[in-house]
Amino acid sequence: MPHPPSPALLAKLAELLGPKGFSTEPDVLAPWLTDWRGKYHGQAAAMLSPATTAEVAAVVGLCAAEGVALVPQGGNSGMVGGATPDASGQQLLLSLRRMNRIRTLDTTARIVVAEAGVILENLHHTVLDKGLRFPLTLGGKGSATVGGLVSTNAGGTQVLRHGTMRALVAGIEAVLPDGRIFEGLAPLKKDNRGYDLRHLFCGAEGTLGVVTAASLHLVPASAARQTAWIGLDSPDAALLLLRRLDAALGDALEGFEIVSNPVLDAVLRHIPQTRRPLAQPSPWYALVELAGDDSSALGEQLERELAAALDADLIHDVALAKNDRESEDFWRLRDSISEAERAEGPALQHDISVPVDLMPRFIADNPARLAAVFPGIRTASFGHLGDGNIHYHVQPPERADGAAWLAEHGAAASRLVYAHVVELGGSISAEHGIGQLKRDILAELDSPARLAALHGIKTGLDPAGLFNPGKLIG
Amino acid sequence: MPHPPSPALLAKLAELLGPKGFSTEPDVLAPWLTDWRGKYHGQAAAMLSPATTAEVAAVVGLCAAEGVALVPQGGNSGMVGGATPDASGQQLLLSLRRMNRIRTLDTTARIVVAEAGVILENLHHTVLDKGLRFPLTLGGKGSATVGGLVSTNAGGTQVLRHGTMRALVAGIEAVLPDGRIFEGLAPLKKDNRGYDLRHLFCGAEGTLGVVTAASLHLVPASAARQTAWIGLDSPDAALLLLRRLDAALGDALEGFEIVSNPVLDAVLRHIPQTRRPLAQPSPWYALVELAGDDSSALGEQLERELAAALDADLIHDVALAKNDRESEDFWRLRDSISEAERAEGPALQHDISVPVDLMPRFIADNPARLAAVFPGIRTASFGHLGDGNIHYHVQPPERADGAAWLAEHGAAASRLVYAHVVELGGSISAEHGIGQLKRDILAELDSPARLAALHGIKTGLDPAGLFNPGKLIG
Repeated sequence: MPHPPSPALLAKLAELLGPKGFSTEPDVLAPWLTDWRGKYHGQAAAMLSPATTAEVAAVVGLCAAEGVALVPQGGNSGMVGGATPDASGQQLLLSLRRMNRIRTLDTTARIVVAEAGVILENLHHTVLDKGLRFPLTLGGKGSATVGGLVSTNAGGTQVLRHGTMRALVAGIEAVLPDGRIFEGLAPLKKDNRGYDLRHLFCGAEGTLGVVTAASLHLVPASAARQTAWIGLDSPDAALLLLRRLDAALGDALEGFEIVSNPVLDAVLRHIPQTRRPLAQPSPWYALVELAGDDSSALGEQLERELAAALDADLIHDVALAKNDRESEDFWRLRDSISEAERAEGPALQHDISVPVDLMPRFIADNPARLAAVFPGIRTASFGHLGDGNIHYHVQPPERADGAAWLAEHGAAASRLVYAHVVELGGSISAEHGIGQLKRDILAELDSPARLAALHGIKTGLDPAGLFNPGKLIG
Repeated sequence: MPHPPSPALLAKLAELLGPKGFSTEPDVLAPWLTDWRGKYHGQAAAMLSPATTAEVAAVVGLCAAEGVALVPQGGNSGMVGGATPDASGQQLLLSLRRMNRIRTLDTTARIVVAEAGVILENLHHTVLDKGLRFPLTLGGKGSATVGGLVSTNAGGTQVLRHGTMRALVAGIEAVLPDGRIFEGLAPLKKDNRGYDLRHLFCGAEGTLGVVTAASLHLVPASAARQTAWIGLDSPDAALLLLRRLDAALGDALEGFEIVSNPVLDAVLRHIPQTRRPLAQPSPWYALVELAGDDSSALGEQLERELAAALDADLIHDVALAKNDRESEDFWRLRDSISEAERAEGPALQHDISVPVDLMPRFIADNPARLAAVFPGIRTASFGHLGDGNIHYHVQPPERADGAAWLAEHGAAASRLVYAHVVELGGSISAEHGIGQLKRDILAELDSPARLAALHGIKTGLDPAGLFNPGKLIG
């Protein structure tokens, strides 16, 4: 069990980090002790904000010597409470936000070395100035940091073409739980010296140590993009459309998101300056994006494929973005869903994946399974059909007191969702991780063999359990 | 420390596995107790050849209960002695070769589920019958098995485009050291339920348990390919050519290998029915392959780019394969290098990587560093320039007694090679793994932080040290 930090340790940390790097001021700490959705609240004995890897290593070494727990935190924009300390006030918050330098940018090899605290949007701008693109983006890009993106193996809306964070990480630097620095930034394409620490730290949620920097793959900035908002009948139709576009357009296809009509309605209700892209509503929409070098060729390809899909009655209607501004308007509808759903009131949120081909079946069948037990329940689906990953929200019946209903029935309703996912061989956390939110359900639903292996890894690397206790499996 | 198997355990295993699955016959075991290059020799109390995952789990459970060590083995075609038991005769050889079924082949999702014992060449043929391709190949494809390819994170000659084995593995099934089965075959594109066991088992060399099956990504069989054998001056010129082709041809570029002239000479000397593709020798050669759907378009693109490179004096001479037979002849030159080098007599072999841009510098500088200490020493380089990975062989001076020279100076010469690699931020094992061959040099040259992490993982997952002791870090 971790210990509370002694006054002597706090004094040493304060001296080591200086006034910019150490605080116990309640006002300074407050915004970082609650997750952005306001769901988790914690306390911390102090907030530590080292500015260099050497400082991180010194902090970790001092804490390890006294058995004090650390909670790493980046932009605090996670979805599962993974960066919020517990209520004891004995943990130390380890913020990486001051480590916000781009160390190197190699335009020939197309590799950027970014420190953990670099904000995703800043990274986008920095590399775009050199004609390059970091091809991962998500709604929280204005706050999400590189360290958090690595540690949660973040996804987003371009995974279809470019993969999740782990596919983009060419190397990492991390401080291990004993305070030693793992120097693994060299972007080696091939390296078979045993267990792959890079992949192990991707998605480890700060439970095995703390990522301090990453080497990231870049791609040439696309000269052109084409975006379409498409009305269609069902996830089945969307999957057929996806297969056609994938076969015809190959690597040009960068994004393929689906949104149900009620979800779009929620966005239009709550997010200012949004408008419906198509005159007539459809039950479902697909948001499709192509990227490439030649705008008119892309546009012709997309129009030809969509015209064929219209002819085949696979889709109802299409709005093609005429310029970047319209593209951004389409994407803002998609990227605002989380915010809109929050404004809609309390809901159970499930971030789930199944093999791609089974997703339409899940979306078709699960609402009926829920309604059989909980009449009047409402569901909303949106997300990354091409990745087999959707966000599936369950709202209380319209006339129920939402909070009370969720307190009484929420856990049981989520179990119905997760049981269905497991039945289809899927994952109860496709994208957002486990954190605090799904720790118990993971322990309940995952296989004993896999859980034992996760515990073995945790114990082997952090035997004293000092890194992010209470998260994932800790 | 592992124990020797008791007679009672051997009797139980014999009964469990039946006569096809259990043997202590010296003649049956002999071929599997020496690695294919004849460098490592071991003994085993028995060879176990289970036919199903359930049998593997039962074997592992019985051995775990008695603390008996297991050495997993596939096609026995590894390069580092990783599948050869030690000399004690107390270890059990766990052969996966009888688990050779293709379980499922989904042509829509392009996923094949293959058991660990499926031979790579058989996998190629099976999926090609359905118009698909498993895009990893290497010289040992007639013996290498899926389990071995996963466990060594195999590379080969198509990594440039398709990545190493870990990029092609969509899921795994493995038996953990306690005998439980990890069922991770579902090909989920996104899954953030904590530490990624799939990536951890890729390249773990059978030290954390044994892979029993894998879900593998397939690609459409290419309708066409174009292969060229190109004469040029240096690895520098080759890297410039690679950058040009990469920019102009993009994903069509599947292979880019380099071979030095002395290496080609060795192949022509030792391998029957091989011939020089170009009339005039060059100091270096590049073997380039494009794949795509349209043969004449590919051919035109390649000819245009190579004509421009000739005009720019970047290359000397080109032979374009006129048909599949000529393509295969070119590739046979490349794939026969290991065999030819073996026939050349004893040599130090180094399978190394550095960041791609630094490889020409390594190839240019290292021979001089060696010659300064060991006059007359000869070096040979070939391999995967585009991956930053070459095979770098060091031969004793021409008049020396090869075996005696290697015994006296080999370790010191290899240290000069590896020190240079480490200086450039590279890996002392890019492709072949650690096994027995590099266990000591890894312990000597790798960083204490990384080694401690590897030991932590090993201890956490295999606390009794029963899986493949004496390999990697065990």
